[in-house]
Amino acid sequence: SVTVDAPEVDLSHLPRVTQELVAPPFVPAHEQVASTGPRVVEVRLEIEEKLMVVDEDTGAEVWALTYGGSVPGPMIVCHEGDYVEVTLVNPPTSVMEHNVDFHASTGALGGGGLTHVYPGEEVVLRWKATKPGTFVYHCAPGGEMIPYHICHGMNGAVMVLPRDGLKDGEGNPLSYDKVVYIGEQDYYLPMDDDGNYKTYEFAGGDYSDSLAAMRGLVPTHVVFNGAVGALTGEGALKAKVGETVLMVHTQANRDSRPHLIGGHADFLWEGGSFSDAPMTGFETWFIRGGAAGAAMYTFKQPGVYAYVTHNLIEAVLLGATGHFVVEGQWDNDLMAQLKEPGPIST
Amino acid sequence: SVTVDAPEVDLSHLPRVTQELVAPPFVPAHEQVASTGPRVVEVRLEIEEKLMVVDEDTGAEVWALTYGGSVPGPMIVCHEGDYVEVTLVNPPTSVMEHNVDFHASTGALGGGGLTHVYPGEEVVLRWKATKPGTFVYHCAPGGEMIPYHICHGMNGAVMVLPRDGLKDGEGNPLSYDKVVYIGEQDYYLPMDDDGNYKTYEFAGGDYSDSLAAMRGLVPTHVVFNGAVGALTGEGALKAKVGETVLMVHTQANRDSRPHLIGGHADFLWEGGSFSDAPMTGFETWFIRGGAAGAAMYTFKQPGVYAYVTHNLIEAVLLGATGHFVVEGQWDNDLMAQLKEPGPIST
Amino acid sequence: SVTVDAPEVDLSHLPRVTQELVAPPFVPAHEQVASTGPRVVEVRLEIEEKLMVVDEDTGAEVWALTYGGSVPGPMIVCHEGDYVEVTLVNPPTSVMEHNVDFHASTGALGGGGLTHVYPGEEVVLRWKATKPGTFVYHCAPGGEMIPYHICHGMNGAVMVLPRDGLKDGEGNPLSYDKVVYIGEQDYYLPMDDDGNYKTYEFAGGDYSDSLAAMRGLVPTHVVFNGAVGALTGEGALKAKVGETVLMVHTQANRDSRPHLIGGHADFLWEGGSFSDAPMTGFETWFIRGGAAGAAMYTFKQPGVYAYVTHNLIEAVLLGATGHFVVEGQWDNDLMAQLKEPGPIST
Ligand SMILES: [Cu+2]
Ligand SMILES: [Cu+2]
Ligand SMILES: [Cu+2]
Ligand SMILES: [Cu+2]
Ligand SMILES: [Cu+2]
Ligand SMILES: [Cu+2]
Ligand SMILES: [Mg+2]
Ligand SMILES: [Mg+2]
Ligand SMILES: [Mg+2]
Ligand SMILES: [Mg+2]
Ligand SMILES: [Mg+2]
Ligand SMILES: [Mg+2]
Ligand SMILES: [Mg+2]
Ligand SMILES: [Mg+2]
Ligand SMILES: [Mg+2]
Repeated sequence: SVTVDAPEVDLSHLPRVTQELVAPPFVPAHEQVASTGPRVVEVRLEIEEKLMVVDEDTGAEVWALTYGGSVPGPMIVCHEGDYVEVTLVNPPTSVMEHNVDFHASTGALGGGGLTHVYPGEEVVLRWKATKPGTFVYHCAPGGEMIPYHICHGMNGAVMVLPRDGLKDGEGNPLSYDKVVYIGEQDYYLPMDDDGNYKTYEFAGGDYSDSLAAMRGLVPTHVVFNGAVGALTGEGALKAKVGETVLMVHTQANRDSRPHLIGGHADFLWEGGSFSDAPMTGFETWFIRGGAAGAAMYTFKQPGVYAYVTHNLIEAVLLGATGHFVVEGQWDNDLMAQLKEPGPIST
Repeated sequence: SVTVDAPEVDLSHLPRVTQELVAPPFVPAHEQVASTGPRVVEVRLEIEEKLMVVDEDTGAEVWALTYGGSVPGPMIVCHEGDYVEVTLVNPPTSVMEHNVDFHASTGALGGGGLTHVYPGEEVVLRWKATKPGTFVYHCAPGGEMIPYHICHGMNGAVMVLPRDGLKDGEGNPLSYDKVVYIGEQDYYLPMDDDGNYKTYEFAGGDYSDSLAAMRGLVPTHVVFNGAVGALTGEGALKAKVGETVLMVHTQANRDSRPHLIGGHADFLWEGGSFSDAPMTGFETWFIRGGAAGAAMYTFKQPGVYAYVTHNLIEAVLLGATGHFVVEGQWDNDLMAQLKEPGPIST
Repeated sequence: SVTVDAPEVDLSHLPRVTQELVAPPFVPAHEQVASTGPRVVEVRLEIEEKLMVVDEDTGAEVWALTYGGSVPGPMIVCHEGDYVEVTLVNPPTSVMEHNVDFHASTGALGGGGLTHVYPGEEVVLRWKATKPGTFVYHCAPGGEMIPYHICHGMNGAVMVLPRDGLKDGEGNPLSYDKVVYIGEQDYYLPMDDDGNYKTYEFAGGDYSDSLAAMRGLVPTHVVFNGAVGALTGEGALKAKVGETVLMVHTQANRDSRPHLIGGHADFLWEGGSFSDAPMTGFETWFIRGGAAGAAMYTFKQPGVYAYVTHNLIEAVLLGATGHFVVEGQWDNDLMAQLKEPGPIST
């Protein structure tokens, strides 16, 4: 290994903190401006292979390969200069080998080369967060297993905040009231000759069918939070008029173009880098496949906002729609219905 | 409704102006730098469901759902801080319910939640233009009708200019001699088993066939101004050497990558926001699906320029090619044919 | 022709230099900061139609249409203000007409309108490099032949450096130790009813089959340097820890999203324009179809880095993977394997 004989690094002088990971669309508790110097942030990622319903209407299912049991996996939050110490656990109940590649890290295929774990194994990897921004992590076990695992949900995000927090283009601080973490997943679910989704008895059972479907590059489903409707109804996101929300959107494999129907991106780190000034005033933004980006919006009106990828075929027919439910007072200056729908007057 | 009981807003002190909308690729007469304070800009959008030929060569047709009878619908132009007062009219001859979602506006699904009109109805919506830039508007009647209406041509653009006009990255004013408004439309026209485009007797008759075709995400046609060849030949755009043209490109549903063959984007607002400095010197730019962007170019040579999406399969085989015909004096300093095609000399 | 009767331009006072073109992923020797004033840079592009293996595993072949015998064609390097004088040679052994459209040039369809050469012909075109950046060039013989030639490999890149070299966002000079030139090619290889790739006896023999395959917009192969595996194994790229590499990525027809697994873009000219400040700290970037962009990275760790388009289906199943092999000392501060894979401890 390239790491053999490299000088040891002693980080025992740094404070350590354990970050409790939470399922998306939520994110771990964190400071926006770091109140301390660099720390070692310990996280535990437990792999889980599980059968998930992708679309209740059709009964389409997938043997999802997950970090932490969710699609996407939990977000890790730290500050630039921190060290992330990940314990990756592949339980004995798994049937597959997994690993993890952190786009935020440097070297060894993002850690993928140092973290292969068979069922019943764990590994500990530490990496330094040198670039501020939002970044994808994903499984990359090698060869055709790479797209297979990613397209079965095995991806998540890291947010590396600047130590002194986010800034606008003039250096003024930007802060948010909450973060929502929207992981978009493309699935390529095999169908039988009658157009019905096939079912499989165990994780990996769909391997050759899946590869054939993936090769066509057209997903059967594009969803947020793992399933059609996961972020609508009971799963809808909440906000209030006047609240500022940071929307982190991750897509580990395929381009996306988020849009908040009725809102905007006031500030936008489209490629996810926090080392550049944000763009402003966007209607629709672009997530490069294999990237996580961030948009900040202060809600100005109450009501339901649909958050979609604005290929509206994908949003509506393939599943990529979530909802924000926003409470507060309507502002007729911004928008007013001057005449209700009714007979044509002229 | 969220708007019930909201305080009324009195704009009776503001000047009012009626904007006469014109069919694309043209845009309404307008000031680049506003000579007054904010105004109320009244526009009338009349819906028209009509059978249109998409490709004369094959006879492919679509029951287009349109604003104003054109694909895309007419551009609305205003300045930041203006109020746009839209009368949306669905004539009794229509068979479908429609509405309109303005990406430039704030709240109520971009107005979509306040503008549902059945055949024989009209509605009046007013919204404030708070973000400068070029923005999509489109029909979004709900559920699967959303992509259906958008993919049948029901979309257009709003241009919100900064009150003091466009600026370069150093704050110097930028002005244009003309605006061309290029609306790109993806169609998914159903074919029969022999590969011939199907015909339908009325608007909406293709509903289930269309949804099936759209789900595959591969359009049969990608066109400018509604049909193959609409912006070539008699429909070609005109310019002169030395003229500066602002090219507004809108794509309501699908990514595009405009390129002017033989020219460039001298200045580029790729995501359409005029609140950020333009990028400069681009060969090819990117319109996020569900967005409108703007590129400014000063023509330097005479001749025919093809304006394409630079997936050249889409440009040539699916239809996304327009022409600029530019008059003026050739400049041999920029380009010269030093030796005509002829026998190989060495 | 528009160029008839235009005043002649005398460049006889300028120094002339002949640039020896080299096959990708290499680039011609060049200065990063120009030590002289503008020059005339002479290059010779010899067309070659040749049968190439696209994938050794399946035996898939293409009658490639090439500049210089490689896919992509050789990179041309100059500085802003230079004149590029191209001799385009179509040998008598060719069966097709070709030409060349330089996105970096101005007018006459990028020179495409002045460079049509039949087998046995040559032409000389001179154009001025007015915009700094990385740019695509490609064949565009007209109509359906345009996407046909481009999708058969007939494209390359020009790099126009600022006379005083590259700069960061604060105007500080940026220099590189080497340039790698990664041309991504999408192929749409026809298959027979059994799913086997068809073979053809001569260039152009696949014309109607190819057009049918291209129309579906889903490539069978997406490769770097013309073939699956061309930039892996013996073809892998080389670097050392501490070296700064400029990665120029060109895609003449289709969007791409490059990612360096285990690394980043420290500096990024995503749309390829060197007249704007580079973005910084990107995980994954976006090449607009029909454009060339540039990313600069200083390697910090030894090992193998995969360079991919991060639609990982395309990277792994369709071929778009290259390797950097980087030598040097591992840095445990950036990344350390604290515990090797082994039994789960808790
Ligand atoms: Cu895995
Ligand atoms: Cu990755
Ligand atoms: Cu409608
Ligand atoms: Cu929309
Ligand atoms: Cu050619
Ligand atoms: Cu081109
Ligand atoms: Mg359903
Ligand atoms: Mg729900
Ligand atoms: Mg990112
Ligand atoms: Mg035709
Ligand atoms: Mg025409
Ligand atoms: Mg826009
Ligand atoms: Mg193979
Ligand atoms: Mg190889
Ligand atoms: Mg470029």
